[in-house]
Amino acid sequence: MQIETIRLEDDKLTIIDQSCLPNLVKYIELNSLADVFNAIKHLKIRGAPAIGIVAAYGLYLHAKHLYHTCSLTLDTFYSAVTYLESCRPTATNLSWAVHKMYAVYEERETSESEVLNALRTAAENIHNDDRVACQNIGYYGNEFIKSGSNILTHCNAGILATGGIGTALAPVYTAFNQGKKIHVYVDETRPVGQGARLTYWELKQNKIPATLITDNMAGYFMGCKKIDLICVGADRITANGDTANKIGTYSLAVLADYHRIPFYVLAPLSTFDLGLNDGLNIPIEYRTSDEVTRFWDINKNLNFKVENPAFDVTPHSLISAIITDKGIMHKPNKKSVSQFFKLLT
Amino acid sequence: MQIETIRLEDDKLTIIDQSCLPNLVKYIELNSLADVFNAIKHLKIRGAPAIGIVAAYGLYLHAKHLYHTCSLTLDTFYSAVTYLESCRPTATNLSWAVHKMYAVYEERETSESEVLNALRTAAENIHNDDRVACQNIGYYGNEFIKSGSNILTHCNAGILATGGIGTALAPVYTAFNQGKKIHVYVDETRPVGQGARLTYWELKQNKIPATLITDNMAGYFMGCKKIDLICVGADRITANGDTANKIGTYSLAVLADYHRIPFYVLAPLSTFDLGLNDGLNIPIEYRTSDEVTRFWDINKNLNFKVENPAFDVTPHSLISAIITDKGIMHKPNKKSVSQFFKLLT
Repeated sequence: MQIETIRLEDDKLTIIDQSCLPNLVKYIELNSLADVFNAIKHLKIRGAPAIGIVAAYGLYLHAKHLYHTCSLTLDTFYSAVTYLESCRPTATNLSWAVHKMYAVYEERETSESEVLNALRTAAENIHNDDRVACQNIGYYGNEFIKSGSNILTHCNAGILATGGIGTALAPVYTAFNQGKKIHVYVDETRPVGQGARLTYWELKQNKIPATLITDNMAGYFMGCKKIDLICVGADRITANGDTANKIGTYSLAVLADYHRIPFYVLAPLSTFDLGLNDGLNIPIEYRTSDEVTRFWDINKNLNFKVENPAFDVTPHSLISAIITDKGIMHKPNKKSVSQFFKLLT
Repeated sequence: MQIETIRLEDDKLTIIDQSCLPNLVKYIELNSLADVFNAIKHLKIRGAPAIGIVAAYGLYLHAKHLYHTCSLTLDTFYSAVTYLESCRPTATNLSWAVHKMYAVYEERETSESEVLNALRTAAENIHNDDRVACQNIGYYGNEFIKSGSNILTHCNAGILATGGIGTALAPVYTAFNQGKKIHVYVDETRPVGQGARLTYWELKQNKIPATLITDNMAGYFMGCKKIDLICVGADRITANGDTANKIGTYSLAVLADYHRIPFYVLAPLSTFDLGLNDGLNIPIEYRTSDEVTRFWDINKNLNFKVENPAFDVTPHSLISAIITDKGIMHKPNKKSVSQFFKLLT
C-alpha cells in the first residue's frame, strides 16, 4: 500500500492528518504558514525528518505568497523561518531545514521569481534527499536483521515520519522486502500513542507481522527473550553520539543494556547537531498535562499535577550503533563520530 | 478524608466501584457470589489484599444464602471457593483467603448457624488483620523515607488495594503523618491506569504532594536524580523472594538497579507463596487486547494484534528489601526468606 505522508503537487501542499489515524485516513491541505505551524504544533505531521520537509515546503509557499503580495524581503522571510523554527524545540531537522531554505533565499542573486524556483527546488531536494537517506539507512540497517528476528521499536520512525521508508523502520521494510521472516513489537508510546496509532497501522498496511504492547511491557518481553534487537529513530544527535528521542527511549536503552540486546539508533546525518558536545545541552520539550490525563477521562477540575517531557536523552554508552544514510558508527563516542564526519569530507 | 474501600455492615457488602474513579466516587453493593466474582473480574475491586478480603466476605454471604435455601454443604461451599479462586490467577491472597474460609467451614463441629458466625468472624479477621498488617508495613517502611524524599510508585498498592493504609503506600502515609516532607511520582500504569485513576486520587484526597507521569517517563526522572526510592506492592512472592506485581514493575527494578536507587517491595506475609521455589512458576494472567486498544479509540475491525500480560516477575536480585508486616528482609534470597519465616515460628 502506498502511503504518501507529504506531497507537493501544483503548489498544493498535502499531508495525511496523523491525528486521525488509524481509524480515518484523511488528507489535508496546508494553505498558509499558520496552517503549517499548527499542523506541526498539533502533531498532524510529526517525526523529525517529516516536519523538516513540511516546513521547507511551507517556507517556499509562504515566499510565493509574500511575492504575490509584494512583501517578500529578507526580513519577512527570516521572520517566517524563526516562526516555524520555534514550533518544536527538540528535533534538529526542523531547524536544519528552515535554515537551509534561508540560506537559499539569502544567496539570491537573480530576480525574485527565479528565487521562488530555487526555493521550490531546495524544498524538493530536502524531500528527495530524505527519501534516498531512508533507503540507505534501510540498506545499512538490514545487515543487523536476520530471518526470524523480533524487533522492538518505539514511537514512529517510519513512512509517516519521513519522506521515505522511515529511519528506525527502514531496515524492517528492507529486510521484509528481501523475504526475511520478521516480527515487530510496537511500543504504544505514551502519551500521544505514535506506536499504537501510527507504527502499528503502517506496518499492517505493509503486511509486516507486528504485535502492539504497552511501553511498560517491553522489559517483560526482553526478559522472556522475545526481543532480538531494538531500533529507534532520533530527534537530535550530539557530537559524542548522545541521542534525543521520544520519551521512553532512554528506559529501553537501559533495559537493552541489562538484557544484552543490541540497541540501534537510526537517523540521517541531518539529525546530527555537532554544535552540541553532549546530550545534557539538548532542550527537552515539555508538553501539556492534558496529553496525559485526557486518555483517562480525568475531569480537568480535579487538577491533577502532571509532568510531560516529550523526549529523553540516551547516552552514547548505551547505543550499540548509530546507523546513518552514509554508513554505520559502531559504539559511537566523541572520537568515532568526529572521525566518521571527517572521512565524509 | 476517609476512604472506605470495603465495608460489611448488617450483612451488606459494599465497595467503592474503582472503575468509576477518579471522576465519580460510587459505592456499590455486592449481593451475590456472581456479583463478587464480576466485581473482581472487572476490576471494580482490585489489589491483592483487597480482593482476598472481598472474596472472604463474599463466601460468608454466599454460605448464608446457601443455608437459607437449605443447600449449604461441603460440596456447594467448595465449589464457591474454587469459583472465586479461578477469577484471577496471579495474586496469591485471593487463593489464600478463600482457602482460609474453606478451612473454617471444613472444621465445623457445631450447628450450621454457628458455622455462619464462624465464617463471618473469619472474614472480619482477614479484613482486620490486613488493616493491622498495613500499619506495620508503614512502621517498618517509614525508616527508609527521609524528609525531602521523592518516592516513585507503580500501580495502586494503597488504601484502595487493601483493608488499611496500603502496602507500598503505607510508609508514605506513615511518613507524611509524622510531618516528613515527601513527594510521590505516580506511574500512570498502563493499560488499566491504576496509578492515574486510583493512586494519584487517593494521595490527593490525603493531601500528599504527587505528580502523575507516564510509565515510560520513570527512567527519565531517575536519570534526572529526581527519584530517591521506589516502593511497589506485590501479588505473589515466592520462596526465594522473586515477586510478581503489576506489569512494568520489572522494568522499574532494572532501571532502579542501573541508577542505584533502592527498590522496595512491600507486602504482608500472606502474599508469600512458599510452595513455589521461584518466580518462573508464577502463572501470569493475560488479559484482553481491548484493555490496550480502547484508550486509543482504535476501531475493533482494524484487528490490531495485542499481547497484554497483566503482571511480570521481578527477580529477588533486583530487590533491595521486602518490607512485610512482621519485619524487613534485606537483600532477599532463598536462604534469608527461609530464615525469616523460621524465626517467626
